[in-house]
Amino acid sequence: MKELTIEQIAEVLRSEDNIIILMHKSPDGDAVGSAYGLCLALRAIGKRAEPLCGDEIPRDYEFITEKFEHQEFDPSFVVSVDLATIQLLSGRAAEFADMVDLCIDHHASNTGYAKEGYVDGKKASCAEIVMDVIKALSSGFSKEIADALFTGICTDTGCFKYSSVSPSTHRAAAELMEYGADSTGICRRIFDTKSKEKLAMEKMVMETIKYYAGGRIALVCITNEIMEKSGAVQGDTDGIAAMPRQIEGVKIGVTLKEKENGEYRFSVRTGELIDASEICRKFGGGGHWAAAGCSIYADFETAREKMIEACKEALKEHGWTE
Amino acid sequence: MKELTIEQIAEVLRSEDNIIILMHKSPDGDAVGSAYGLCLALRAIGKRAEPLCGDEIPRDYEFITEKFEHQEFDPSFVVSVDLATIQLLSGRAAEFADMVDLCIDHHASNTGYAKEGYVDGKKASCAEIVMDVIKALSSGFSKEIADALFTGICTDTGCFKYSSVSPSTHRAAAELMEYGADSTGICRRIFDTKSKEKLAMEKMVMETIKYYAGGRIALVCITNEIMEKSGAVQGDTDGIAAMPRQIEGVKIGVTLKEKENGEYRFSVRTGELIDASEICRKFGGGGHWAAAGCSIYADFETAREKMIEACKEALKEHGWTE
Repeated sequence: MKELTIEQIAEVLRSEDNIIILMHKSPDGDAVGSAYGLCLALRAIGKRAEPLCGDEIPRDYEFITEKFEHQEFDPSFVVSVDLATIQLLSGRAAEFADMVDLCIDHHASNTGYAKEGYVDGKKASCAEIVMDVIKALSSGFSKEIADALFTGICTDTGCFKYSSVSPSTHRAAAELMEYGADSTGICRRIFDTKSKEKLAMEKMVMETIKYYAGGRIALVCITNEIMEKSGAVQGDTDGIAAMPRQIEGVKIGVTLKEKENGEYRFSVRTGELIDASEICRKFGGGGHWAAAGCSIYADFETAREKMIEACKEALKEHGWTE
Repeated sequence: MKELTIEQIAEVLRSEDNIIILMHKSPDGDAVGSAYGLCLALRAIGKRAEPLCGDEIPRDYEFITEKFEHQEFDPSFVVSVDLATIQLLSGRAAEFADMVDLCIDHHASNTGYAKEGYVDGKKASCAEIVMDVIKALSSGFSKEIADALFTGICTDTGCFKYSSVSPSTHRAAAELMEYGADSTGICRRIFDTKSKEKLAMEKMVMETIKYYAGGRIALVCITNEIMEKSGAVQGDTDGIAAMPRQIEGVKIGVTLKEKENGEYRFSVRTGELIDASEICRKFGGGGHWAAAGCSIYADFETAREKMIEACKEALKEHGWTE
């Protein structure tokens, strides 16, 4: 992948049209916010542009998508945002996996699948890079763009809590608020609103908690049974992954989510000491240092045991003994 | 109370010595951060200064207090921070209730109990005002001061979530990070660390939830029995008050905490529509629009009923009918 500057990214985008913007599967706030924010900015300078995700956009981000007018065109230029690897494309988006022209990303682990791109692993969110691109495009920031990018920043930082947050993250948030981003409304919707179904689901999930390695590993399970019993919907489980690691003494927090056809999806959360993405790479996954994911295809007990073993190994590398 | 400018506040502080800085009872992160931050800045310009709180400082803020060296002197100048009314002073701090020389506060409801002061109800935290005072004092910002003030900002804004957050709040946070504030560590300690006892307590408290007014009011109870059974400590309950209002459809979230001698302390949380401080003022309490508190002295059932009635009245004023 040829590395471009922010200015060059803007130049390339100015010279193209009929642009689709790919998001990864199970899209989070940064994928949705970056894609819709960039798309609106491109339209503001006269381009036809459209975001594309193979999965459904979670209800939490409806305020970004609900007023959005879709455009039909034959794509002639393919952009990806917040996409570390093409393995993370699904459905219709996966059809463009081998033809990504331009990549804008903040994953240090980006595999360089695109022809050209800009990757800054130091940024807390992809939305902050998109913000710089939009400045270089001189499209201006509408309230809708500001809302989308603010969503990207606040979701990817756990509302300004994670170690990825730098002074520039807060300054970007301040600027987006000045462009009209509804900080309070967005934070409330994403972090401070729980349906009764979600509340019930969280309670049941936390009751599945098991500790390993003397309390250094905590694992919770989101089973299909819990989802059915509680009535919670898919997006409701987004915040769960952060919970097991919050418990005092826990170095690795693991969330196991039952999927279809013997797939168990794992979310792994760690702190400064242990690299979550290294643990997940053992099973073909990846992510960031402190937050990563992977799938294991096996029966429940085997999947769980394999993951716990990998976590124990990571602990051993940092001096823990059984 | 004579209103001073930030510059005048700094001038007054420069001309005084042997300064004690009062905090309110049940001190929160903003009270502790503002008091210790200001104290350290005053010492940096050669003053003798000491923070004073009638209650114990919660364990969450130990990182601010543990390395702090106490000074003994006869106080000749009394400052208060984050103190809306002298009713909120307790123990040794209450002895100074009638002799507050200078007040620095961000409660619009400040009763004007001091001789002179600066109150800015638009600031999300008192710590932001103290930050401006410290700039005017030209003491500079040590890492310790930055940590203390950052704690004030992030605790009083629910980690940048509340409606009180403005662009200047984020810019203050960015600046304090540049002075060395350990944003990640502070946020993790305060928002992302739960002891197993706290986790157990939260679960038991959430099981007490009751809905009123068609789900518009949610009430949870922190009984002494729950505290004993779970083994949680006082500071562990700090985050509970935010939880009932987070449930979808809930306009007023109420947390009842059992105290000694027939006292039930209530925390009331609302959104944009309803003024929590107005509800609490009916029982001699107060606070902010969206977060307020009061005590009711009665038996459990009566205390709860009185509060629910007051909440229903507030809902009725906004068009709700039974």
